[in-house]
This record gives sequence, C-alpha cells and structure tokens, in this order.
Amino acid sequence: MGILDLINEPNDIKKIPEEDYRELAKEIRRFLIKKVSNTGGHLASNLGTVELTMALHLFLDFPEDKLIFDVGHQSYTHKLLTGRKNGFDNLRQFGGMSGFPNRKESPCDAFNTGHASTSISVADGIVKARDLKGEKYKVVAVIGDGALSGGMAFEALNNAGRLKSNMIIVLNDNKMSISENVGGMAAYLGKLRTNQKYTGLKMNIEEKLKTVPYMGEKMVKRIKTSKESIKSLFVPGMLFENMGITYIGPIDGHNIPLMLDAFEAAAQSKNPVLVHVITKKGKGYAPAEKDPASYHGVEPFYCSTGEKKTAKSSKTYTDIFSETIVGIGESNANIVAITAAMADGTGLKEWSERFPNRFFDVGIAEEHAVTFAAGMASAGIHPVVAVYSTFLQRSFDQLVHDVALNFLPVTICVDRAGIVGCDGETHQGIFDLSYLSEIPGFAVMAPKNAKEFADMIVFACNYNGPSAIRYPRAKAYYGCETENPIVLGKAEVLRKGEKAAVIAVGKMVKVMDGVLDELEEEGLKLTFVNARFINPIDFEMIDRLCETHDIIITAEENVKRGGFGEAVAEYILEKGRNIKYLNISLPDSFLPHGIPRDIRDSIGFNPETIKNKIKKSIDEC
Amino acid sequence: MGILDLINEPNDIKKIPEEDYRELAKEIRRFLIKKVSNTGGHLASNLGTVELTMALHLFLDFPEDKLIFDVGHQSYTHKLLTGRKNGFDNLRQFGGMSGFPNRKESPCDAFNTGHASTSISVADGIVKARDLKGEKYKVVAVIGDGALSGGMAFEALNNAGRLKSNMIIVLNDNKMSISENVGGMAAYLGKLRTNQKYTGLKMNIEEKLKTVPYMGEKMVKRIKTSKESIKSLFVPGMLFENMGITYIGPIDGHNIPLMLDAFEAAAQSKNPVLVHVITKKGKGYAPAEKDPASYHGVEPFYCSTGEKKTAKSSKTYTDIFSETIVGIGESNANIVAITAAMADGTGLKEWSERFPNRFFDVGIAEEHAVTFAAGMASAGIHPVVAVYSTFLQRSFDQLVHDVALNFLPVTICVDRAGIVGCDGETHQGIFDLSYLSEIPGFAVMAPKNAKEFADMIVFACNYNGPSAIRYPRAKAYYGCETENPIVLGKAEVLRKGEKAAVIAVGKMVKVMDGVLDELEEEGLKLTFVNARFINPIDFEMIDRLCETHDIIITAEENVKRGGFGEAVAEYILEKGRNIKYLNISLPDSFLPHGIPRDIRDSIGFNPETIKNKIKKSIDEC
Repeated sequence: MGILDLINEPNDIKKIPEEDYRELAKEIRRFLIKKVSNTGGHLASNLGTVELTMALHLFLDFPEDKLIFDVGHQSYTHKLLTGRKNGFDNLRQFGGMSGFPNRKESPCDAFNTGHASTSISVADGIVKARDLKGEKYKVVAVIGDGALSGGMAFEALNNAGRLKSNMIIVLNDNKMSISENVGGMAAYLGKLRTNQKYTGLKMNIEEKLKTVPYMGEKMVKRIKTSKESIKSLFVPGMLFENMGITYIGPIDGHNIPLMLDAFEAAAQSKNPVLVHVITKKGKGYAPAEKDPASYHGVEPFYCSTGEKKTAKSSKTYTDIFSETIVGIGESNANIVAITAAMADGTGLKEWSERFPNRFFDVGIAEEHAVTFAAGMASAGIHPVVAVYSTFLQRSFDQLVHDVALNFLPVTICVDRAGIVGCDGETHQGIFDLSYLSEIPGFAVMAPKNAKEFADMIVFACNYNGPSAIRYPRAKAYYGCETENPIVLGKAEVLRKGEKAAVIAVGKMVKVMDGVLDELEEEGLKLTFVNARFINPIDFEMIDRLCETHDIIITAEENVKRGGFGEAVAEYILEKGRNIKYLNISLPDSFLPHGIPRDIRDSIGFNPETIKNKIKKSIDEC
Repeated sequence: MGILDLINEPNDIKKIPEEDYRELAKEIRRFLIKKVSNTGGHLASNLGTVELTMALHLFLDFPEDKLIFDVGHQSYTHKLLTGRKNGFDNLRQFGGMSGFPNRKESPCDAFNTGHASTSISVADGIVKARDLKGEKYKVVAVIGDGALSGGMAFEALNNAGRLKSNMIIVLNDNKMSISENVGGMAAYLGKLRTNQKYTGLKMNIEEKLKTVPYMGEKMVKRIKTSKESIKSLFVPGMLFENMGITYIGPIDGHNIPLMLDAFEAAAQSKNPVLVHVITKKGKGYAPAEKDPASYHGVEPFYCSTGEKKTAKSSKTYTDIFSETIVGIGESNANIVAITAAMADGTGLKEWSERFPNRFFDVGIAEEHAVTFAAGMASAGIHPVVAVYSTFLQRSFDQLVHDVALNFLPVTICVDRAGIVGCDGETHQGIFDLSYLSEIPGFAVMAPKNAKEFADMIVFACNYNGPSAIRYPRAKAYYGCETENPIVLGKAEVLRKGEKAAVIAVGKMVKVMDGVLDELEEEGLKLTFVNARFINPIDFEMIDRLCETHDIIITAEENVKRGGFGEAVAEYILEKGRNIKYLNISLPDSFLPHGIPRDIRDSIGFNPETIKNKIKKSIDEC
C-alpha cells in the first residue's frame, strides 16, 4: 500500500508526515504518467507542478479556501488530492472527469478555466467579494510565466495592487508556455534573483515600530522613504513592486518546505503578494523533461519509451496548412506568419524554420497578434495569423476595429473549429462562424477537403481584404474532389438531384456526402452544394436552389444562433419563397468533453440522426 | 493674417521660424476652441497635445512617416497641420470630416483608430513591415497614460522590445484617461523622474568605443554590465527598460525644442524608444483646464464661458440607469458596480459617491472588468458592469469563457447601443445583439422605455445567471407604458391588430409606435409586440403571431447578420409557416459619423422608409 492510498478526501494530505512528501510526489508522478498514458491528456505541465500543488494543499483548506489555476490544464494533482483519484480512469472521456477545473465536478474547484491569463482577474474578484462579505478564507491564483504575457493578466496585476487585502499570486515559472517563452516579460523574469530576507525584514520592522505612538509612524515613513531608493538598487521584482504587489522569490518549486514558508509569509501581508516559483516542466519523466513541448498535451502512449500508442497515419488539416503556407511563402516574400505561442499546434513549426525572418511568435497575446497583423498589412505585407477558434474569441474587437474597419489584407487561419473533443467546453470552436460572419467585409470560408483548403489559403493570400478560413481538428478529407476555382462569395454544386438541396459548410460536406450516398441507395437523389463561403453567402445559388427544390437543408458545425443556416433561412423567408427548411447545426449550449463521436451522438449530430431528420422532412413534404 | 494661415499643406509647419511656435500654438488653440464650440467634439485632449503634435510634425515628414494616434480623438491638430483646416466647419457631421484618424480622409492618417490601447501593436506591425520591405521611414505611436493600462498595450510593449529596430512610442502622460487614472501603472508613472542625460551619454560612449576594433566591443560589454547594476539605482523607466525599451523622459510636453531634441535622440536608437512627455489636458482654455473630464467630449458651447448652447432638457437612458442602480444599491448590499474608466459616461458617478466601497473603476481594461466581475460573482456578489456597446467587443471571450460558461450572476449594462452618431464608425454599437445572443445562456434584453429599463435592471439584479441590457445613447422614452412584469424570455403585446405583426426590439418600439400610429390613420391596424428578450426569444409568442397574421415584421437597430430578425425568421421557416416576413435592421456594413438622423436617412432606416416598406409588404400579400 502506497502513501497515495491514504489520500481519499480533500485535506487528507495534511495527515502525511513531512518525511514522506518526497515519496508521495514520486507516487503521484507514477500515477499521472500511468493514467495519462492510457487516456491521453496534459502531462508535462502536471509533472512540473506536483510539489507546488502539494505545498498549496498543505497550506490551504478545501473547499473553504479558493485556488484558481490559470488555463487549468495543470490541475491534475489538485484533482488527485481532492478525492478524484478514480476519475483518472476516464479522464477527458465523455461523461468522465474533465481535464480542467470544473465547479460542477467538485466544490474544491473554485472557477472553470481553460483559456490563459484569466486567473488574476478572477482572484481579484474573489478577494473583493470576500472582503465585502466580511469572510476570511485564502485566495490563491496559480499562473504560468507564459500566461503572464497575456494582456488581461497585466490588467489584473494593475488592479491587484489597489486591493489592500491579502491574495497570493503564484507565478509558476518554467520558462515556457507550450513552447519556449518570448518577449520582454520573459527576459525580465530571467533576471530576477532571490529576495526572501528583505521581505521578512520589512514586515517585522514596520510592525514593531508602529507600536510606538506618533514617533513610530513617523519613523516607519522615514524608513520607507529611504528604503524606496535602496530597494531599486538591490531588490528584484521591482516590476511587480512598482505596481503595488509584494514580490517573494524566486523559490525552488520542487522544494515543499521552502514553498510552505513562502506561502505562510505571504499570507501575513495585508497586500497582494506574488510568490515566484521555478519549476521544471515534465519533471520526473525523462522523455517529457527532454521535450516538454511534445509532452504538453499527449495522445495515449507507452510509459516505458514515451512512444505514441496509435501511430499517426494520415495528414490533418493542420498538416495541409503547414505544407501549403510554406509553399506560398517560397514564391511570395510578402507573406508572413504569426502565432500566439502555438507554433507547433497550428502547424507553423516548419515555416518558422524555413522563414525565421517572416515568422512571429508573439507569446500568449491573441489581441496583439491580430492588431500587429493589421499594422503590417497597412504597410504592404500580407500576414497570416494561425490560431485556434476558441482563442480567436479574444481578438473579436481587434478583428472588427483594426482589421475589418481598415479593410486590410489579413488572413486568419482558424484551426480547431467545431467540436474539438477531449479538452471540452472551454475549447470547443463552435462560435466562430457567428462572430466572424457578423463583421462587415470579412470573407469567411470553410474547406470541404484537403485540396480545397489549399486553394482557399492561396485565394486568401491573394485577396486584398480581410479573410478567415475555419477548419477542424481532424484528418484531412480527400473525397468530393472538384476543379472549380475559389471565387469570392461563390458556392459550388457537387451533385444535382431533386426535391431537396443540401448546402453543407466545411467539414459537414464529408458528413453529408456519406448521408447522401445512403439516401441515394434508398432511392432519394438530392442536390448537394458546398457553401465554401459563409460570408458573403452565395444568395444567387440559394435563389436557384429554391426555384427547383421543395426543401433547403443547411448543415454546419457551429451553434445555430448567428450561424450560416439562420442567414440562409432569413433570406429565403424574406424573399417570400414557399419552401421547407431544415437547419442542421449544434445546439445553442456549451458542449462537454469527450471524443467527438460521443459528443455528436449525445446531441443527435451524427450521420444516422441527420439522415433520419432529412427523410422525415422529405416525407412531410 | 495669422501664422496658421501659412499652413495649408502637410509639412508646411517646417517653414515657420522657431520664434513663432508659441504664437502658432496659441492660434491653433483659438481655432480649435472656436470650431469645436460650434460643432462639438473632443476638446480637452486636443488642447493638451498642441505642442506635442507640432513637435511631431517638425520631426516627421508626411505622408512618408507613419504617425499612429492611440484612440485618435487627440488628432485634431494633426488634421489641422495636414491641409484639413476647412474640414473643421463640418467636423463629425454626416459627410464631413471625421473626429478620428481615417485612411480614406488623408494619406497622412496611417491607421484608423477609435478604441484604446491599439497603437503600439499597430506600430510594431508597421515597423516590421518597413524592415521586411527594406524601407526607411519613421514610425511613431502616441499613447496616453490611460490607454497604457489596457492589456493589449502591454502585449505590444512585451513584443516591441524584440523588434531590434527603431520605433518611437510617445507616452502622452496627462495623469488622466477620460477621468483620473488608476492602478499600479499610474502609480508607477507618478514616480518617474528625468533621465535625459543618461540616455544621451550611453549612446555616445558606445558609438565611440565600438570604433576601436576588438577591444572596443569588449569595453562596451564591460561598461554595459557595470551600467546594468548602476542603472537600477538611479535610472527611472526601468519598467520599460526591463522589457527592452529605451526610456527617455519625462519631458515637458509643452516645450517644443525639448521634445524635438528628444525625438531626434530617440531616432538614433536601433531599438524602440519610449519618450515620456507630460502634458496638461485642456491646456490654454480655463474652463477645460479646471474640469478636463467635462471637456473631454463636448456638445456645442459658448467660448466665453464654456456653457453648453443647448441646455439639457430631459433624462437620458444613462440617467435612468444611474438613478435605478443607486436605488437598488440602497436596499441590496450585494450589488457592486464596475466601470472601465467611464464612471461619468456610463452614469456611475453618483453610485461611486454613494457607495465608494462597492464601486470599481479598473481603468481602460474591459477584459479585466468582465472577468473581475465573474470572480466576484463566483464568491456570492452580484456585479453590474456598465460599458459602451463598442468597447464591450473587447470582452467577448471573457463573456463566453468566464461569465457564461460558469453561469454566473453578472449583469452587463450595455450603453450606447445602436447608432451613436458623431463619433462614427469606430464607436457605433451595432454588433452587440449578434455577439451577445450567440453566447449560450446569456439573457439579453432591450427596454422600450424608461420604466421598462428600470424594471429590467431590477430583474437582472435578481436573476441568478448572466444577463445583458442594451440601451441607446438617447433621451429616455416615456410612451408605450404597460404594467407587465419582466419574465425571462417573454415578450409583451402592445396592440392587437390584424394582417401584420410587428415585433420591435428596444428603442425601435418607440420608432415603430409612431409608424403604427400613422398606419392606423391610414386604416391599417397592425399587431405590435415588444420583444423585450433577444435571448431567449419568446417563440411561443412567435407561434401565436404566425397563426393569426399573414406577415411578421421584426425591427432592431443592429446589423442584420446574427441579429434578432434572423433568429426569428429561421424559426418561422423551419416551423414550416407559410407566412411573409420583413426584416428591418441595419445593413451589414460599418456606418459613418454624423447625427443619427442623417445616418438613418442615408441607409433608409427612418420612419418614412420603414412605413413604406411595411405598406409595400402588406400590398403584396
């Protein structure tokens, strides 16, 4: 029986004697490696924060105290220490345990996270609420050095200094976001050196002096003034101190007693305190220590070697993007590529090696990424921003105000659009068709297959205005091949049939192609159109389809509200067409984690259900 | 004839002898006060930047060099110095000169701006494009200390340090955004002291030493290393220097020769340089110097006294919000109010005085404002965030990921929704119904009149989930009074008629009420419904209306794409209702500046045109 077996409920870790911490950390790592090797999940970041999470659990009481994990993919040890050991058997599976903090899952999860740089804002809010309600619990935000480059983290730091109340920000510094960290803040953190003695000293002196009436206050003031000038000489963390946040660190993030001391000291302050801990991403598992970026998020693998269990068999849409953009870059020196800390995930790795001068990783800073692109475009360069659909949400105003309003040639390649699967509700890319299509003048495309995707990238790079291409996290499709060139706002007919016309968007072409094959076998030959453009919509095509069919069916993997189908339906109804209509889209709700097929089955968004809906619709006609 | 009369084209200022600068600045101020007193516009910020803009125009060549104004409302002197003197007669009027930089208006306007904190990202992009294309022009961003609290400015600074190329960021520090500035960054700027000698010295020594082969490089390195440690002792601006940006300042922003020296020195650097200038908002006009917040954006006024020409006659929706929320705050201690540097504009001034402990101005930081609210809500407080529709665009991801996904009781009061008028295309609040309604679980409301607005605020403050109320920049309407309580997702019938049913959203109730009155006089009595909720939509009501009418008409002041009408039309069509439909909404395009009536006339969005559309629709039926 191991030490981990003694931990079954929140706060159980407090019963473990200090001499067993090291062994417990080992057991946790073994547990995580074994479980994640079966289910897949986030590995390197969790291996790096085992001791940090243990120290936080020794320091805090759950669920009274509030612990907010920025991004949240590093919360596995927290889940393990709060009675969710069994959850790891179906981690990230449909109906199973989420890979991120989730308030519905446990009262020990203070806030749902998934996107970067939100934790300090959340903690600011909780601290303020606590004080207003006269409550006493502790509030801790854990944020990585990568997420610290996000603007909203800075906005929150800028406000934290005014709280005049205790909160602890743990800066988990592993010198990486998913890949290596960039920018001025990263350079600054590199310069920081230890500073613990000073902090302890300051608090002691002040407290003692203040007990002397009148003169005491005056002396504190004088000492403070002189310290101000001395501080800038030898105190690191001035960047934080300048903003009103006490700095402690840096501290070894794998030394539990040291961290506990720091947390206890920080808890004494009447102000926000930033505790800077240094951790090693992938710690304790050789393959992950060696290549933490590849072990950030993993598919199931063999523990002994780290090799993937399912070998990669065919190309993904991300691969097609990667190849195509490099091809374009070879002949067109005017194209540059931009990522927000996601060179690997978005397929820009090869580009970054081939064209380092035309590659820009701006760190976790999606807002800047888009407006930086707009600036370049205003000066004669055509930037391609590769970003996940869910993270592009953070650039909505920049797309409107900086790219579209200036009508600039910026291409947004929107990866992971639609249902993404195991990362779950914080990561589903199911809103982009709506929020992109409402922006005036934005050309919004979705490819049906690999070749069309490549054609669209070429089209976008030659288009003299704003454009976006959204494509799924999926293997590239090679069916439904056609030779029709991409023309702005034009759809293409894939099959001519009768009675009903199906207009499918992007990846739904493949799905509907299968459905239409089955219907043909049953004697129903429908017309099939590939939308290509979600904005502008090919209304001439809609007109023609309405003239010769009784039913129009739209299919898209996006929420219904604001999507392609609504715009088509509105057009048809306003035109006064007496025609039947069927909208195939996602429900207007957040979708949980799980493999995409399970999610689709749960909401009736699979080929069988779709086929039955179509048949019913035709029968009723 | 004055000196200003000699300036008729870009770069003409360079012909003016130095001894006349002071007189020219005076003339410019007189000109701006006189013109803005007639047309209204932004005054205090422009009066504060007269000398700064003159110095920039002496330093730069237009249109070759690129000058980007953050926010852009301080660009009047720039317009004046680039041949647009006559434009001031119809400043901000429909068809006249914009109050913000506009690429369509002049090649000297490098980038359209209107929202805060974008300029450094834009400049980063232009610099990179310039270098890639091997061009040589200068790039300058002018950003206020208020806009510097926006997260994306930080993201851009974080990346600027890596450019290894010259660009100049002018920090225009007037200690204010619209009202007084807040937060850690503001406190930090307060501490900065002059530093010019050091910067000049450093560059000279390095350049000279580098000419000595081998040993020279070594000596530079040694000096640099020793300077690093000395620097932290006496050099201000370390916050910027730490991020790789050379700091010069602070400099008197009303002293042209001093600023010119600084710009020339900054231009010698091979890195980004931040030049910190101190200006006085409202400078040179006593009423504006005394109360710069009130003279930030002004209506036409009498120059001699500063009094408004048109006295305020009746309450606006902002006033109703202000009164109502204070009333709620008195009885409900659980309500707090949050603004992003807009306490005056959003009507939170009185709240801030009555309940200072429950008032939070987070600075220009809309992302943080929303997630800070989410954090508070997760800990038992109900926050009300008051924000302009156009600026809420910047919080889209926070509304989705932090508020809605956690289903938290946060109320967003969305002011300036719909056509706002003279600020123009960057400020129109015409997208919010679309981007808010696509967020799952967000209750989205729009009031028809003053009382209903108050009722909706009460409803939202008692609703245990996310809600938004959008209301226009307009005098509150007191007609169409009813006693129906607000019920989630329920519309209300205002008139029962026949043939056609009109469903109006928010302020369009008033407009359509007038239209329906006129139609009744012509013998057409239509049914009239107030939508109240844009999400969730009252589909039962739609069903009932479809059963008893031949035409459904929706009316909203929002772009068509993703709006209320599309969702209603989709529902009707999918239900198989054989009914006529008319969508009254804004076109899917950006709308220019001008008084709202002129804008509405230009796009056929006025009562006359709407009435005719309805009549035509009925005639065709």
